[in-house]
Amino acid sequence: MDFKVTHNDTQTAARCGVLTLERGTIETPIFMPVGTQATVKSLSPKELEDCGAQIILSNAYHLYLRPGLDIIREAGGLHKFMNWHKPVLTDSGGYQIFSLAILRKIKDEGLDFQSHLDGSRHFLTPEDVVRVQLALGSDIMMPLDECVSYPVSFDEAQVALERTTLWAHRSKKEWEKEKKGVLFGIVQGSTYKDLRKRSLEELVEIGFPGYAIGGLSVGEPADLRYNILHGTVGYLPSTSPRYLMGVGLPQDILEAVSLGVDMFDCVVPTRYGRNGTAFTSRGKVTVRNGEFSRDQSPLDADCSCYCCRNFTRSYLRHLFNAGEILGLRLVSYHNIYFFLDLMKKARQAIKDGCFKEFKESFAARCV
Amino acid sequence: MDFKVTHNDTQTAARCGVLTLERGTIETPIFMPVGTQATVKSLSPKELEDCGAQIILSNAYHLYLRPGLDIIREAGGLHKFMNWHKPVLTDSGGYQIFSLAILRKIKDEGLDFQSHLDGSRHFLTPEDVVRVQLALGSDIMMPLDECVSYPVSFDEAQVALERTTLWAHRSKKEWEKEKKGVLFGIVQGSTYKDLRKRSLEELVEIGFPGYAIGGLSVGEPADLRYNILHGTVGYLPSTSPRYLMGVGLPQDILEAVSLGVDMFDCVVPTRYGRNGTAFTSRGKVTVRNGEFSRDQSPLDADCSCYCCRNFTRSYLRHLFNAGEILGLRLVSYHNIYFFLDLMKKARQAIKDGCFKEFKESFAARCV
Repeated sequence: MDFKVTHNDTQTAARCGVLTLERGTIETPIFMPVGTQATVKSLSPKELEDCGAQIILSNAYHLYLRPGLDIIREAGGLHKFMNWHKPVLTDSGGYQIFSLAILRKIKDEGLDFQSHLDGSRHFLTPEDVVRVQLALGSDIMMPLDECVSYPVSFDEAQVALERTTLWAHRSKKEWEKEKKGVLFGIVQGSTYKDLRKRSLEELVEIGFPGYAIGGLSVGEPADLRYNILHGTVGYLPSTSPRYLMGVGLPQDILEAVSLGVDMFDCVVPTRYGRNGTAFTSRGKVTVRNGEFSRDQSPLDADCSCYCCRNFTRSYLRHLFNAGEILGLRLVSYHNIYFFLDLMKKARQAIKDGCFKEFKESFAARCV
Repeated sequence: MDFKVTHNDTQTAARCGVLTLERGTIETPIFMPVGTQATVKSLSPKELEDCGAQIILSNAYHLYLRPGLDIIREAGGLHKFMNWHKPVLTDSGGYQIFSLAILRKIKDEGLDFQSHLDGSRHFLTPEDVVRVQLALGSDIMMPLDECVSYPVSFDEAQVALERTTLWAHRSKKEWEKEKKGVLFGIVQGSTYKDLRKRSLEELVEIGFPGYAIGGLSVGEPADLRYNILHGTVGYLPSTSPRYLMGVGLPQDILEAVSLGVDMFDCVVPTRYGRNGTAFTSRGKVTVRNGEFSRDQSPLDADCSCYCCRNFTRSYLRHLFNAGEILGLRLVSYHNIYFFLDLMKKARQAIKDGCFKEFKESFAARCV
């Protein structure tokens, strides 16, 4: 892996970079569509490429449970299994074990939990989680971490942080046995600035090629999130890519870009798409609503995606109203295209030295 | 409209033809994918073109109820509404009024029924149904007919036949006011050969550019269906296209082609696709089943569709197992491609003088 910052914005901490991985080169800041179960919901790999996706996300916990590692190994790895040949970042699934599975016990050794699918009992160590991701053939792996919810006491956050550091250390040792793909570190510490600083210092001490910021967007107020994010990003090595996990809405992403974050993922474009809400250059459009039944305009007049070039809001509204799958497909497609196009425009604005104006103009139009 | 028979098979009554309509030229025998609600379920118009679709079907009853004619008129007609610019054949929806709606009263004047969607009360005359299809901008329209179920008494079948002839007459008169697109006639008469013959003679007397055979595939035994079909097709003018409504499975289609039928439609490829069953050159494959979880082969090794070129049965099985929309999309796509490709191969076999062998070889492989 190689990462080069190519442009630094003068008015904000935003930056452009080029992240080179074995399976492809990624221009940052980048949005990564989420393909939890080895598919970005409702879209084909061909459509993801048409939308300009350079890297997608998948989830070790989900794939470990279903279809299971043996099946993916037999297919020749995750990329061949799902027919996506550009980079994949896999989340460890630690967050899902804490939020989705029935968690039985957290020990320093690992996590004892029951599957959310069938209740089956599993025990995963940080080493196991690295091995799962190596078996998947992931390009960027995430170590198991302890995610705390919001709000949480300083002491609890500190215990989780210490375990996260311990697990990061063990994960790296496990990864070093094979040295395939790359392994990032994940900064925790909840909303405590001191803990965030300690977490990232400990991770930098271990040494990772990239750093993720976890444990945000878990219910904390937006101003507190930005405060913590601001305090964290500034201390991360400027020469490494910075990844804000699970964020977010377009404006949240642009705010984080302005603080110096390089990588993002979120289920929002496909989840909103399935429910009939489109992101547009003028804010959200809930096209499933009756008010659009006679609207002959596209979802977004400024968008040149397949959906906006070919279909009206009136038709999309009909598809949702009639329960037709094509409706959620087209709006999901548009949303993914919109997020990726937004990042492309953000990169251009950084290069052109007008990112601050770009971000403010976007926010003004989307109110 | 122009129809020319270009090849007649010597061993069977199969034939190839070219049907020229304002919006496109169709090679027969042809399969028409069904887009009841102005969308072929789960597929985009672009994908239909990629599959080789030359004409699709839609349904006047469904579109009349939802989204309603005003909305489609405002869009500039059905083609613009759904962004499909090749020909569309619209079924009157008579069959749906008999099978889906709550039918209140059948009178010579028309049908008094309640919507299956919201119970709202409607009365449609044969003239109304023609006007609905003219408003949609249909390329081939079907008149309102009285569909009887199976089994039905001779007397009941005769009453329905007489009403169908009366309505065909009135439909043609209504169509002649605008003379846009073309209006076919529909032969009824249940499983009574005499009634079938009388029905088609009365329709030919009125004069239509094409003839459909309705009221089959409604529960009658297969041998009786072929018997009636054989008895009917032979009496239809050889210079007009013959359309067997709602049929069917690949082998049923090939049998009907051998009797001289030119046009087909059926929901089977998309309905089976949504449920995880693929049609292949070696019979049906229910890829959602566990037995395929480690199968690294494509749905059909002889198929060159996007699904078969890029995805394994193992992956498709995973998608169905995990409830992912991409699974039903890909299998629906494959099935539509398969049906259209089968017709292409059937046309070539007729031209090459080996249709009988083609049909028999297909049946032998698909047992």
